[in-house]
Amino acid sequence: MLATFSDEATIGHALAFEAALARAQAEEGLLTNAAACAVEAACAALAPDPTSLAEEAAHAGTLAIALVARIREALGEELAPLVHMGATSQDLADTVMMMQVKAGGALLACDLGRLDRALAALATSHATTPSMGRTLMQDALPIGWGLRLAQWAAGVSAAGTMLADAVRIHALVQCGGAVGTRSGSGGRGEAVAARLAAALGLAPGPPWHARRVGVAAIGAALGILIGSLGKMALDVALLAQNGIAEAHEPAAAGRGGSSTMAHKRNPTGCQTVLSAATRAPGLVASLLAGLPQQAERGLGGWQAEAPCIADLFLLASGATAAMADVAEGLEMNEERMALTLERSGSGVDVGESASIVSALLRTSD
Amino acid sequence: MLATFSDEATIGHALAFEAALARAQAEEGLLTNAAACAVEAACAALAPDPTSLAEEAAHAGTLAIALVARIREALGEELAPLVHMGATSQDLADTVMMMQVKAGGALLACDLGRLDRALAALATSHATTPSMGRTLMQDALPIGWGLRLAQWAAGVSAAGTMLADAVRIHALVQCGGAVGTRSGSGGRGEAVAARLAAALGLAPGPPWHARRVGVAAIGAALGILIGSLGKMALDVALLAQNGIAEAHEPAAAGRGGSSTMAHKRNPTGCQTVLSAATRAPGLVASLLAGLPQQAERGLGGWQAEAPCIADLFLLASGATAAMADVAEGLEMNEERMALTLERSGSGVDVGESASIVSALLRTSD
Amino acid sequence: MLATFSDEATIGHALAFEAALARAQAEEGLLTNAAACAVEAACAALAPDPTSLAEEAAHAGTLAIALVARIREALGEELAPLVHMGATSQDLADTVMMMQVKAGGALLACDLGRLDRALAALATSHATTPSMGRTLMQDALPIGWGLRLAQWAAGVSAAGTMLADAVRIHALVQCGGAVGTRSGSGGRGEAVAARLAAALGLAPGPPWHARRVGVAAIGAALGILIGSLGKMALDVALLAQNGIAEAHEPAAAGRGGSSTMAHKRNPTGCQTVLSAATRAPGLVASLLAGLPQQAERGLGGWQAEAPCIADLFLLASGATAAMADVAEGLEMNEERMALTLERSGSGVDVGESASIVSALLRTSD
Amino acid sequence: MLATFSDEATIGHALAFEAALARAQAEEGLLTNAAACAVEAACAALAPDPTSLAEEAAHAGTLAIALVARIREALGEELAPLVHMGATSQDLADTVMMMQVKAGGALLACDLGRLDRALAALATSHATTPSMGRTLMQDALPIGWGLRLAQWAAGVSAAGTMLADAVRIHALVQCGGAVGTRSGSGGRGEAVAARLAAALGLAPGPPWHARRVGVAAIGAALGILIGSLGKMALDVALLAQNGIAEAHEPAAAGRGGSSTMAHKRNPTGCQTVLSAATRAPGLVASLLAGLPQQAERGLGGWQAEAPCIADLFLLASGATAAMADVAEGLEMNEERMALTLERSGSGVDVGESASIVSALLRTSD
Repeated sequence: MLATFSDEATIGHALAFEAALARAQAEEGLLTNAAACAVEAACAALAPDPTSLAEEAAHAGTLAIALVARIREALGEELAPLVHMGATSQDLADTVMMMQVKAGGALLACDLGRLDRALAALATSHATTPSMGRTLMQDALPIGWGLRLAQWAAGVSAAGTMLADAVRIHALVQCGGAVGTRSGSGGRGEAVAARLAAALGLAPGPPWHARRVGVAAIGAALGILIGSLGKMALDVALLAQNGIAEAHEPAAAGRGGSSTMAHKRNPTGCQTVLSAATRAPGLVASLLAGLPQQAERGLGGWQAEAPCIADLFLLASGATAAMADVAEGLEMNEERMALTLERSGSGVDVGESASIVSALLRTSD
Repeated sequence: MLATFSDEATIGHALAFEAALARAQAEEGLLTNAAACAVEAACAALAPDPTSLAEEAAHAGTLAIALVARIREALGEELAPLVHMGATSQDLADTVMMMQVKAGGALLACDLGRLDRALAALATSHATTPSMGRTLMQDALPIGWGLRLAQWAAGVSAAGTMLADAVRIHALVQCGGAVGTRSGSGGRGEAVAARLAAALGLAPGPPWHARRVGVAAIGAALGILIGSLGKMALDVALLAQNGIAEAHEPAAAGRGGSSTMAHKRNPTGCQTVLSAATRAPGLVASLLAGLPQQAERGLGGWQAEAPCIADLFLLASGATAAMADVAEGLEMNEERMALTLERSGSGVDVGESASIVSALLRTSD
Repeated sequence: MLATFSDEATIGHALAFEAALARAQAEEGLLTNAAACAVEAACAALAPDPTSLAEEAAHAGTLAIALVARIREALGEELAPLVHMGATSQDLADTVMMMQVKAGGALLACDLGRLDRALAALATSHATTPSMGRTLMQDALPIGWGLRLAQWAAGVSAAGTMLADAVRIHALVQCGGAVGTRSGSGGRGEAVAARLAAALGLAPGPPWHARRVGVAAIGAALGILIGSLGKMALDVALLAQNGIAEAHEPAAAGRGGSSTMAHKRNPTGCQTVLSAATRAPGLVASLLAGLPQQAERGLGGWQAEAPCIADLFLLASGATAAMADVAEGLEMNEERMALTLERSGSGVDVGESASIVSALLRTSD
Repeated sequence: MLATFSDEATIGHALAFEAALARAQAEEGLLTNAAACAVEAACAALAPDPTSLAEEAAHAGTLAIALVARIREALGEELAPLVHMGATSQDLADTVMMMQVKAGGALLACDLGRLDRALAALATSHATTPSMGRTLMQDALPIGWGLRLAQWAAGVSAAGTMLADAVRIHALVQCGGAVGTRSGSGGRGEAVAARLAAALGLAPGPPWHARRVGVAAIGAALGILIGSLGKMALDVALLAQNGIAEAHEPAAAGRGGSSTMAHKRNPTGCQTVLSAATRAPGLVASLLAGLPQQAERGLGGWQAEAPCIADLFLLASGATAAMADVAEGLEMNEERMALTLERSGSGVDVGESASIVSALLRTSD
């Protein structure tokens, strides 16, 4: 995920945008094939130093200006106007962000699948294993151990579905030109945008420069996903307390150690997730705060989005991987579970745990 | 919307929950018909004073305890155990919240429809009326005036769809008992829950006491809706500045006045929305922060949700009504629009505004 | 605290503002003494119905317009212009908010004192009572039990000091007129403002209509206070878990019960605080989001503040009272503490707990 | 500021912590002078690769474990136990964060001084230059142009003072050992902590591992500072609109350009600040959300803080520098100001602008 949102990936996507734009314009008769070939070649050959490019971009206020200047230099004076033709800086910035969103979503899906399979298997085989149910942080009545796991799975799975839906619907190409009218395209703007979208693996659609509900929806889904992982992590950390000891993270060499107490085993995976869950709500709030953007393309709001989206994907990625590892190696202590129930005298009636587990896992398919 | 989230409505929904639960249990053979009738009658007859009930609820830590005590008192010693049978306080609290969510969603849909129709009509008839497009708060190039309106409509409409979907999917009955196992229902718990859901107009489903992704999704959709209305409000306020004067809120008697400058006309509708848009992101963050809840039913997290959901619906309601009024009476000043363009020398080419407007309005159907 | 932020209190403060303004203007020679007496009498006699006034205020966009209209009606045509002279709606709204802030701060100080005294006494007497220290939610090494309590006290006390400082510095009168120039006061504007401030118990200062750092500072201090109480509440709830059982909230009749499990004892005080701590960060974010306000008096930003400030004070009040009650009646179980340590084999060396407790309590004086 | 929070600086501070700890322990007789010299030499000689160290730290869950392992390797088996003696990972992490906070605060102070001087000079010389005052985004009545600038200065200055106070009070050394008792220091723990603090330029104090009000206070002050800069930026952007044109950012070569409209001059400095102001409230909310940390050292909460603090300093730094540049080169257009007033017919009475400017600038000294 770090690679997906690295400066190198950003520049690579930006060059792909310019090349695909020229190609799409050529296919719609706005450029000659030769010109498109030249732009493609220039983009393929360009390997700018990320650090100095970032400095220029910061000064200019946008990556597009700095990058397009380099492509134009490579093309020579005559061909220079044919790159980035009719496009605006934000076309490039938004399209690149959505390419990263799409890649990030695909990466997350792998670890989410791993987590879901591990939890579903455990939940099914322990659907009726009696374990103490707890409410308001007090021992209450028995549940099937698998019911708790199935609730985790259903929560994460629902959030994963929200994210996948949001990415599918809102990971759109941005191709509208200076004020979102696609002027100067000889009426071929929509067709160019559609070709560009197809080339870059994004959905087509009208320009959305100042209509950011899609970005907000993707961010909110990430925040909900991280929170649903936080629920699982909090439960595992509570179960792993020495006075409870009903379940533990898997042990891993060199992990979870303490610099002062060598014998201690810290719930490091849970720590990763709880830290992410502390940060995510604020990042989502930043995205929502940016929704009221001015006129055709706003000042400040959309520029705040990319770092928030990147942070949310990085946190979601770390959190999902951590919980997938925990689920795959979760150590449960049936003896302690039985002891807790026995001491409480609350019996072992787990009610309809089995059928609820089935219903929850169906939902999370 | 105030009525939907009033103490009276909350108590009314709570009584409806208890009555419908007894009825559902009778239909599944867990109660006699006579007992269910008695509970229904007691609930119908009870009219507790909201203020003293609220005080008792605050002391007890939950509304359910205080309310159920009163129903039991009304039923008499013998029948008393037959109300709230197998249910937990949170079953009542969550179901009541979702009844309010459902009602709130329906109320919003009316004003959203009004807003959408007004904007669509204006956007269509002015799709190519030339107007200055602005980027980074600077005059840029011409757009069709209707394009800006269609962007507003598409943003609000997409957010409205997110909200409607979230309510449809996540406005679930809560019926799981103390630890969410539906124990003590003789295997009829799922059937009881389904009947209860149908009676109260909610969707059925497994218990979700500590799995709050649905609440978060509804809250996020409300936040995105308010932000998308904020985009429209900000644009109208910018256009109504004296130095721009291209559009204004409709004038209303006794509204938008100033206590010092009687001649002034303040954009009061925009103020309502921008104020809501300032508050919404924080409220959504609170809902996301509450996702990691402990074990079967958490401590503090879910208790934080109801006021946030109520605030978000109230803000969304005020904001939607304000923008519907603005859209229905929006005053545009074509002369000023033309003058701005003329002075800038940027021509009147509005590019593909017409076809983009069509595409945006199709999306927002 | 509910009374402090009630509609009745708001209206009462608003009438006090108008009366004190007229009096201050008379003392500076801008009004006759008779006129000031008439305004004072009219304000003293007015008892508007909060509900209908709220409706008018919502329509007009501000409370001032609706209220001043009623005072003017009471004064008669001739004297009418002499009330609210030179003032703007926001002068009234901001001054009223700060009167409530000041009252709220004083109320909180009582419960904070109660909490501090109870914790300090316990911490001192148990400074070296050995108890298990826990890190990353795992048993670690012994601490003095009083050290944990002293850390709670020091955190809450530091936050209480931040709040008291913020209220002292930023609870300012607002008296600037339409655009914050105090025009039309014959050069006596500053003197009028100083007299008004003194009469209402606020600090004097230049107008701050669009300079909201003071409001943000007060809100941030409240958020930090609630979070510091949340730290104590979380610890108490963790200690009260059945598997730990080293400390408990005091029992209270009719409190902390469960509607399904009569034997259970829920940490209701902790629940109140943890719920507040879930909500507070979002409310503070809303206040910070409103800082960039337009020109002399903004659109939407400041209107979002009053409900956030009221919510924060209400949450802080409930949370402080809850933790003061818990501190005063905290049940500690030394036997369990000793047993936990014994089983862990980690000894009873509590290091420099005693001197750290002293240092922490000195800080929190 | 990027350098202050870079991986290199973090590692450098961490090595300084270990060296200074050994030296402090030697001065208190807990280590021989030779041992301290050896540790100092090992720390001075170590130049770990930031990338591979970051990977190890991520796996171990803390930087301290990875770094201390390398120092121990360099020291050899015999001396190895003498580094990081009695300290815990969080001692290192928190102390390093506070060293960065202190450096960051000093850096900000320079640009804040530059901004304050520029605004104060302009405000003083134009205290009574008539300019249109605006309320609710509508033209209202005249103000002295300098009054608006003095309000900006007073807001930023008050926020700067809050930040400086917060850093002075809360930038504390962390030196408490595993559970914050300073055990194993032979009663010299407090003295060691005081020496360590002095060596690293931080304030001394009792351990604060799970008492995070200081971090929250620093973060809140940064958020308020960014918001107060956002107020200035929003005003400048509003004034620079083509229909207003009363003031502009200074022009800078290669800055504020548009990739499509070469003639346009974008308010790039304002964009930087408004983007920062969109992000800051959410980052502060994350810090407040992390306040309720468990027991002696929490799980997840404090690990979420460092990236938020770093982001806030980076945003504050960029925003302060941007507004300092704008203030130093602010272009005001007196002709347009006069024209706006003339057309409105609202006269040129700027009331007590001059004395309010003086009062505001006194406050901001």
